[in-house]
Amino acid sequence: MATAPVSMEKLVSLCKRRGFVFQSSEIYGGFNGVWDYGPLGVELRNNIKAAWWKDFVHRREDVVGLDSGILASPRVWEAIGHVEHFTDPLVECRNCNSRFRADQIDLNKNCPTCGKKDWTDIRQFNTMFKTHVGPVEDTASIAYLRPETCQAIFTNFKLVQGATRKKLPFGIAQIGKAFRNEITTGNFIFRLRELEQMELEYFVRPGEAERWFNYWLEHDLSWLASLGVRRSMLHLYEHPETERAFYSARTIDIEYDFPFGRGELWGLANRTDYDLTKHTKSSGEELEYFDDETKEHLVPYVVEPSVGVDRMMLVALLEAYDEQPDKEGIRTVLHLHPRLAPVKAAVLPLVRKDEGLVKKARTIYDELRAELPVQYDETSTVGRRYRRQDEIGTPWCVTVDGQTLEDGTVTIRDRDSMEQGRFPADEVLSELQRRLRQPWTRPE
Amino acid sequence: MATAPVSMEKLVSLCKRRGFVFQSSEIYGGFNGVWDYGPLGVELRNNIKAAWWKDFVHRREDVVGLDSGILASPRVWEAIGHVEHFTDPLVECRNCNSRFRADQIDLNKNCPTCGKKDWTDIRQFNTMFKTHVGPVEDTASIAYLRPETCQAIFTNFKLVQGATRKKLPFGIAQIGKAFRNEITTGNFIFRLRELEQMELEYFVRPGEAERWFNYWLEHDLSWLASLGVRRSMLHLYEHPETERAFYSARTIDIEYDFPFGRGELWGLANRTDYDLTKHTKSSGEELEYFDDETKEHLVPYVVEPSVGVDRMMLVALLEAYDEQPDKEGIRTVLHLHPRLAPVKAAVLPLVRKDEGLVKKARTIYDELRAELPVQYDETSTVGRRYRRQDEIGTPWCVTVDGQTLEDGTVTIRDRDSMEQGRFPADEVLSELQRRLRQPWTRPE
Repeated sequence: MATAPVSMEKLVSLCKRRGFVFQSSEIYGGFNGVWDYGPLGVELRNNIKAAWWKDFVHRREDVVGLDSGILASPRVWEAIGHVEHFTDPLVECRNCNSRFRADQIDLNKNCPTCGKKDWTDIRQFNTMFKTHVGPVEDTASIAYLRPETCQAIFTNFKLVQGATRKKLPFGIAQIGKAFRNEITTGNFIFRLRELEQMELEYFVRPGEAERWFNYWLEHDLSWLASLGVRRSMLHLYEHPETERAFYSARTIDIEYDFPFGRGELWGLANRTDYDLTKHTKSSGEELEYFDDETKEHLVPYVVEPSVGVDRMMLVALLEAYDEQPDKEGIRTVLHLHPRLAPVKAAVLPLVRKDEGLVKKARTIYDELRAELPVQYDETSTVGRRYRRQDEIGTPWCVTVDGQTLEDGTVTIRDRDSMEQGRFPADEVLSELQRRLRQPWTRPE
Repeated sequence: MATAPVSMEKLVSLCKRRGFVFQSSEIYGGFNGVWDYGPLGVELRNNIKAAWWKDFVHRREDVVGLDSGILASPRVWEAIGHVEHFTDPLVECRNCNSRFRADQIDLNKNCPTCGKKDWTDIRQFNTMFKTHVGPVEDTASIAYLRPETCQAIFTNFKLVQGATRKKLPFGIAQIGKAFRNEITTGNFIFRLRELEQMELEYFVRPGEAERWFNYWLEHDLSWLASLGVRRSMLHLYEHPETERAFYSARTIDIEYDFPFGRGELWGLANRTDYDLTKHTKSSGEELEYFDDETKEHLVPYVVEPSVGVDRMMLVALLEAYDEQPDKEGIRTVLHLHPRLAPVKAAVLPLVRKDEGLVKKARTIYDELRAELPVQYDETSTVGRRYRRQDEIGTPWCVTVDGQTLEDGTVTIRDRDSMEQGRFPADEVLSELQRRLRQPWTRPE
């Protein structure tokens, strides 16, 4: 596999052309910080979410799920301090009115937009989106779009624990949208105003938080490796005390070498008992855990591994993208893990005009699509059709050729090795399902 | 199966106790029109969504998916007329300030809240939630939370068609959250301010809209039947011309007999070319279809089957809920379709204190949970454990007993028939997977 870094321009272009990612409201000139995911994008995202849910929830005895509202009582955000503190430092150029995050720009230099230097004072800008619930716009009816999915895990802690009877340590996982009114957006789907998070809040005895912090760090790195993300592209950034959020006793970011620079992919925080304690104080409901055996009441600590679906999608695409020179020019291929690939297989009759081949190919396609997301393609040369599937990361192509009509076998071509093998047509489904269960190794 | 109607009270109670549905922000006194879905609720919802996606997208050659933003350019909503017309008629009691939908209350009668009769004039209230994007609150930065998922399908029509090369007729499907600032909410998860939709926009030649309308009506009814929803509980309501939305040439609701009255489950509309034409006019982008063969440009008609995840979930629970008197009192059971059941199987050692049984049960549990959402339970009598699983709709219980240690077989108990059969322990996974693929019939 080529090792040259991928340019964002090429990736964005492929994403639009093949239907992974579209600019929001493109026909109206776009809408900053929001993207729409096309037919292949929604499949890739669903596969990322399903893989995370399977590995972080279903396969574990100690984690259960939750799906809470984007809207909630404003008291949730008041209690946790977000109404006051969920802010970014905003600075504006008096000359051209461009706005910047004061911590992402050198104020000793001139405005990058107009070249003048006339900055306003820095003010704290709350990045929670506000709306009004009910038919009258007054302060009593203010509600916020959640800026993180975790808070509903804390407010529902007792209800979930009561319904599931889980014992410490245990976790509550959630996948869902979150919204941040970012001052500046950009780098494709990296910094968004509407994003999707995969968050796990893992509740532990206070004395065991450090050990579980290390466990989840290793776990998350292993999970990334299992999906083919190179360890050499990842870096651990431990926040010094001065930089940590006020609720965190320890924070490590798993950063990735994006083409535009190193950036956070996965955040891991020891949130201590900050959230449960704050909600207990504000609501009057004791959000604590009662240990049946020791008869002890305690407020658990929380270890939080939190990753964005959008950033995970971007990393999956960047890790997968490859260009290989060949006789016909450039072969563009996405070496996506088969678990993540939007289309698992394509069924191709070698020659479109051969009714026998087409009929057989359609039969195989109909059988496969009852179980797997697959495509059927009969247009242009088979070489071009392979290229089309390579470009969207389809791991296998099933080709029906002359020999099929003689001995009932078809070829299965592998995207990564480009090797082909013959299999009986009626064993294709089980062969694909077998391959999907195999561990996958990213080609060198 | 008992035929007595389920009371909402009993269902709501079970949903809270077992972790299907919690009131949003309960520790803060709740938040109207929004619910949080607990560990079993999120699984049931995910299964409903996955079943819909498989049957409406993956298994079809003519439908692709989309996942667009909840936020979009405000011009989308201006173009389609929603900024002006997405309204409900609001009336207020001058005496007690209670607010009602004027079309849901008899204004000749007294206020149901205070008993006085002093109504304000009816005014049109826009039910789109508004927010502001960017650091300054002015009209230029207004954005709306989408009140329906379909519009992004129309604005992305050309991008999706271009990327997928689909030919008419074809559909674009989307599952996602939508928001409506309802004047009155209620009936549990029936009328919500934050809801989730499963929408398909099916694009056809204008002359074929009526035929496809009938096709999707039959299709949707069949799909409901395949999940065990009784036809006798469903009613078709064809909107008379005077009641139809302005964009629709024909609308039929599939209504369900909820305990609180008949209500819409699934809406089917012939939206004509209204949306594509409006967006073409407003954006200047021609949202049309070019037929390669006839060299014809045309604006397709759209047939829209649209169903709410929340209402589908409510119907699934209502159809499943049953109480059966037995020796020990009342057996509460959810006869959920196995596809929808949150937990597919529970593994139970007959006796907790028998180390051999526990070890064997744990081995089977570990093998199953690599592939399926399953539970392990060893507390209290096996009879009680069966009841616990019945109550959450687990289709099968795998029990490890004395005979297991002798001949390696376990029992599989069926939730609906309560019959048990013995199977070799190492065939349990394949037996469960076989049963999951079988059609399921709702018990009489």
